[in-house]
Amino acid sequence: MSLSKGKSHHHKGRYNGKVSTSNLGHSGEDFPEFEPFPDAPTPRAPADDGTYLSVQMVDMCQQLNEPQHKTASYNTPNLVVRRGQEFLVRVTFNRPLAQSDDFQLEFLIGENPSASRGSLMVVTFNSRLGGPWSGRIVGRQGVTVTLGITPTPNAIVGKFRTYVAIVAGTGMQRTKRNAASDLYVLFNAWCKDDAVFLANEAERNEYVLNDHGVMYQGVIEDMATCDWVYGQFERGVLDACIYILDASQMPIWDRGKIMKMLRMGSAMINSKDDNGVCVGNWSDDYSMGRSPLSWTGSVQILLQYANTGVPVCYAQCWVFAGVFNTFLRALGIPARPITNIASGHDSNGNLKIEFIRLPDGSPDDSNTTDTIWNYHCWNEVFIRRDDLPPGLGGWQALDATPQETSDGFNRCGPASIIGIKEGLLCHPFDSGFVFAEVNSDVIFYKQDRYGTLTPYWVNKDYIGKAVYTKSLDSNSPNNITQNYKYTQGSEEDNRTKDRADAYSMEMDQSELPDTTLSISINARQVNLSQDVNLQVDFHNPSDVPKTIQANLAGSVIFYTGVKASQLINHNFTIPVPANQMKSEMVKITADEYMPYLGTQRCLQFVVTGQTEDESVSALKVLNLQIPTLTVTLSGSPQVQQDMFANVTFTNPFNFALKACRLAMEGAGLMSEKTRFYGVIEPQASISCTESFNPRLDGKRCIVAVMDCSNLCEVTSTPSSIILPAVECTNNHSSTV
Amino acid sequence: MSLSKGKSHHHKGRYNGKVSTSNLGHSGEDFPEFEPFPDAPTPRAPADDGTYLSVQMVDMCQQLNEPQHKTASYNTPNLVVRRGQEFLVRVTFNRPLAQSDDFQLEFLIGENPSASRGSLMVVTFNSRLGGPWSGRIVGRQGVTVTLGITPTPNAIVGKFRTYVAIVAGTGMQRTKRNAASDLYVLFNAWCKDDAVFLANEAERNEYVLNDHGVMYQGVIEDMATCDWVYGQFERGVLDACIYILDASQMPIWDRGKIMKMLRMGSAMINSKDDNGVCVGNWSDDYSMGRSPLSWTGSVQILLQYANTGVPVCYAQCWVFAGVFNTFLRALGIPARPITNIASGHDSNGNLKIEFIRLPDGSPDDSNTTDTIWNYHCWNEVFIRRDDLPPGLGGWQALDATPQETSDGFNRCGPASIIGIKEGLLCHPFDSGFVFAEVNSDVIFYKQDRYGTLTPYWVNKDYIGKAVYTKSLDSNSPNNITQNYKYTQGSEEDNRTKDRADAYSMEMDQSELPDTTLSISINARQVNLSQDVNLQVDFHNPSDVPKTIQANLAGSVIFYTGVKASQLINHNFTIPVPANQMKSEMVKITADEYMPYLGTQRCLQFVVTGQTEDESVSALKVLNLQIPTLTVTLSGSPQVQQDMFANVTFTNPFNFALKACRLAMEGAGLMSEKTRFYGVIEPQASISCTESFNPRLDGKRCIVAVMDCSNLCEVTSTPSSIILPAVECTNNHSSTV
Repeated sequence: MSLSKGKSHHHKGRYNGKVSTSNLGHSGEDFPEFEPFPDAPTPRAPADDGTYLSVQMVDMCQQLNEPQHKTASYNTPNLVVRRGQEFLVRVTFNRPLAQSDDFQLEFLIGENPSASRGSLMVVTFNSRLGGPWSGRIVGRQGVTVTLGITPTPNAIVGKFRTYVAIVAGTGMQRTKRNAASDLYVLFNAWCKDDAVFLANEAERNEYVLNDHGVMYQGVIEDMATCDWVYGQFERGVLDACIYILDASQMPIWDRGKIMKMLRMGSAMINSKDDNGVCVGNWSDDYSMGRSPLSWTGSVQILLQYANTGVPVCYAQCWVFAGVFNTFLRALGIPARPITNIASGHDSNGNLKIEFIRLPDGSPDDSNTTDTIWNYHCWNEVFIRRDDLPPGLGGWQALDATPQETSDGFNRCGPASIIGIKEGLLCHPFDSGFVFAEVNSDVIFYKQDRYGTLTPYWVNKDYIGKAVYTKSLDSNSPNNITQNYKYTQGSEEDNRTKDRADAYSMEMDQSELPDTTLSISINARQVNLSQDVNLQVDFHNPSDVPKTIQANLAGSVIFYTGVKASQLINHNFTIPVPANQMKSEMVKITADEYMPYLGTQRCLQFVVTGQTEDESVSALKVLNLQIPTLTVTLSGSPQVQQDMFANVTFTNPFNFALKACRLAMEGAGLMSEKTRFYGVIEPQASISCTESFNPRLDGKRCIVAVMDCSNLCEVTSTPSSIILPAVECTNNHSSTV
Repeated sequence: MSLSKGKSHHHKGRYNGKVSTSNLGHSGEDFPEFEPFPDAPTPRAPADDGTYLSVQMVDMCQQLNEPQHKTASYNTPNLVVRRGQEFLVRVTFNRPLAQSDDFQLEFLIGENPSASRGSLMVVTFNSRLGGPWSGRIVGRQGVTVTLGITPTPNAIVGKFRTYVAIVAGTGMQRTKRNAASDLYVLFNAWCKDDAVFLANEAERNEYVLNDHGVMYQGVIEDMATCDWVYGQFERGVLDACIYILDASQMPIWDRGKIMKMLRMGSAMINSKDDNGVCVGNWSDDYSMGRSPLSWTGSVQILLQYANTGVPVCYAQCWVFAGVFNTFLRALGIPARPITNIASGHDSNGNLKIEFIRLPDGSPDDSNTTDTIWNYHCWNEVFIRRDDLPPGLGGWQALDATPQETSDGFNRCGPASIIGIKEGLLCHPFDSGFVFAEVNSDVIFYKQDRYGTLTPYWVNKDYIGKAVYTKSLDSNSPNNITQNYKYTQGSEEDNRTKDRADAYSMEMDQSELPDTTLSISINARQVNLSQDVNLQVDFHNPSDVPKTIQANLAGSVIFYTGVKASQLINHNFTIPVPANQMKSEMVKITADEYMPYLGTQRCLQFVVTGQTEDESVSALKVLNLQIPTLTVTLSGSPQVQQDMFANVTFTNPFNFALKACRLAMEGAGLMSEKTRFYGVIEPQASISCTESFNPRLDGKRCIVAVMDCSNLCEVTSTPSSIILPAVECTNNHSSTV
């Protein structure tokens, strides 16, 4: 975001003081080692006569705190805690504490930290006023004191610096800056008072702690599973997420506010407007970066962004959703990606996906701007909505894919899912946009010879066919369509639609001519390079015979519904006797469609049939299926033991695969490894083996993906193992 | 806005067709002169055998239509109409119409106009289907037909191209492109079905048609009137407003939607994020442009922006509000600027304006980031809110001044004023932000020697002291504070505050120590270069004598409340007997403050008094008053007669004014004229006379402003005249 305010001299008279927008950028000392009291008459450091208290060591007790805070998996040398929950710090002094000793802990974040902004926290351990973080002495053992510190449940999220300050004579004597005692504070789904509180432990384990997941792609009859390594615990990922906030120039003091964080995240995960993380690319040319189909997870993308500061090429919707999901879980926000099958992408802000046909029934491409995405992935987060009336909290839709104008910018949400289901579209953010994605009607218009449009066919069931997210206990899809909408045509659904209408969503009110005819298109899903056989059925339930003027248009489409190239545009006449059905068989051979595929593998067919007094249409999308890799794991399934992953693949096609790139990765197991193969000849096989040492226990997966320059991706069925739990052996302490 | 989507090849597979975002950019023919029907078997233009109908002339009837549409004042050669209201077009054919003749009018806007997007309107005049704009034949006279066309009340707003198309044989024969028959369609406050409908005629005359107005500036005790030439009817201004929409790359099809237009306008009037119209500058250095204080109105700014495409330097809040007001009224949207006296500018998104004091009571500038603007100007528009529950329509707050993060970007509103009054802050856009501007509490904190903050004094009445807008019938201020809030402390006010609290506006809940002491600061407003006398009263209503440790801090501030320079920081002790009041007199001579003024003229004083057990503060802002210009009008007060404006000024100061720039302007009277004076010596006078020919009748004003390099502006009391009404003599017709 262009929050460059306060930077130019033009704004010298606008802002009092510099807005701190950098968390990781801070370096150097915050304080002089001895700071006299502002009201001290003769500011002077106390002479070191051996009686003054001083600090020998500060131990952030990583091994003790992190299991309590469910943060032991983070691969960082610094303590990670969740806000609203006590953590322990052990301070070793030069001598046992005396009654008269007075000291405090100070936690600082960003440049120019300030108590009034929540970026400088003074924690006291006696009756002296401090706060709002609370402190208590948990135990004393000789010269070592164990302190309990509880950040407020609305604390700023990010990386804090820790100081111990001792009241010494006429001032404060402080520890030196020590990076080892830095502290990450995260959102806390386990804390009732945190806006991200989630009551169910299984859900918390999945939506905050699971670092591997799946997203769904494809069409309803042929849904593919896309494994994704979120990797929120991998080395550097948490810092990369904080870097994103720094890059957005988001003020430090806003970083504890869940709504601002989500709104900013939604904007920053795509590169539009703000040089955010991922560059969208929906074309056949990925030559300036990596194909969206070639990623195995978020880790490489986030690390590359944080290391270079330059947006990463390239992403499509599931990549945006995957990276956003990592960002959210890394910061402690319960999140999941979802897939909406047949997602309405209305470019006009109404609820109508409009297809215009020419007088002969063939598509009028120049006037059709709406599209139906075969599927679209976005995210959901579970939060309280204090800014809305009661009842609208819980899951919220959030979308980082750069969209059609959503309030003028490329971001979307958070939008209350309950609000969308109930048609309460009067609340921020972008609930009307999400509502349209799952509720639009498909309307076919005929353009007459004079340029006037008339609607002739409406399909109210096509859009938002199903909304899926991963199940809690497996990789199988959990159908959560009922979270977004009531059953089409039910009383509740009508109430919702009436409300949406009242909030000026333009519902379809077309008065259609009565039709008796109907058309359906049937086809088996086939493998890429097999012939496609369509059966188009024309039903005439009327008592009079009809002669139908039909048009069959077939195209290769992007998964966004946009036409990549036209395959067939075929006019034919078919007589259908009264009360009968007639079928037209159409074959499109592999030789016919293969030259037009590019990296796409979706075929869309639209049939329009007309008689003198009626017109009807039908729509069908086929997803050509692709081969898979085989991944086999071997070795000793133990943390920090040697293991091996073997990937094999045989080219099933009668053409060579070129410039192949094989990538494999596993959260907690292996960072991304890649191999390149110039050519894989028809029927040729490849095999490759990588070794790794598992870092984390539990159920773990290796994901492998191969992409080629002349074909879409070749995905794996991932191979998973279960690693027995181990004691955390991290133990970091810091000395002053 | 960075709506550059669809431009890069990356998005080839994202968008179906190009999004049209340019209204004025279109040139060239839209159609071939003869367009065969798509279903015609042998497309061929008909032979001209003299029997075919053809068009001789199209007359847009500007003189007839514009008085009906209240658009006669627009200085443009093209017809301007308001949507939802019929206008007439006279078409002269080559022969009288026959029964079998079939023709239609076509209105096109933007590139690639399309019927499905509302950017290509087919208007028919027989039973043949057209629409949604309706047409009827009003009259026939020989070969001339008078047609009535009614745009829908939700039509796209902008500049349309007009074609007449005649069904001729196997196709359509069309008129050629003719710029003279272009048509501006505006919002219509007179039309019940338009979202901007305003029922009251006096209000419509003011808020849509008045091209001159005033804004208020200063402090509550010394409010200054700032005359402003909106000039929405001046030559080029309407095109400049459409240019702004083009520059924003706002899709053509969104330009009839009031909410999208307002949201975009709020973002585009300032240059931040999007290279919009005005560059904000709050400093003492305006050397790279014109001082915000030097403008007489919006016209120069809009024309310069449209001519250069580069943001105009420089603006402060009233300039943003003035230019935005022109933009809104030019497009037909009822709008007014308002001034909020003592406007809370909270940088933290809560409802607390926080001032931090050091232990001795002096200001802690480095920790104080909130400010109180002496005043802040924004806009209101009167619209229906179809996107919200009933009851929230009417006046809406809109702010084009680049703000502290308002949802991450520099724009604000539309926010329902009724919603703000009732505390219904759960609706878009930015109602919480505006609520804070009028409702925040001022809280003084003391920072103790350990860095901990404690609140000690709260003022709940200081912020949002009054909200003013120009009265309907005069330039005197109309206090509309009750539109924004209930009486402080009333039952309704408490209900509103409770609601705001529930929507997580952080209200002040400080538990303050009981105080008995109070402090007040009294001072007369004085002219610039006179000495300032402060009387600080310390009241001790208790039964024990108190000795008060007091701090008086005085600064030159920007009108935004930001400190420009410190004048005094004075600690003193004052004993106050029980039940008595003691006063401290403080004099700040002109010699003391003049060197620190820069271009500012506001002095802020804060007194903090402390005893052992209590602390209190008081706050006072003084506005140093400036001399005025004298404007005298002479000549014949008639439209298109010679008139003269004489401006005189005598330098009242004991120092010379340098690099003086005198500007004068009057809406409907005179475009901006400027004179430069290198030096005006102490007590020296200048006089200058400009001639002009009034273009418009009614009550009209000349505004003059002078700014100098070494002093803030010298404003005029504007001089006004009433010009008798004249018949409109415009008469444009177009031939094919």
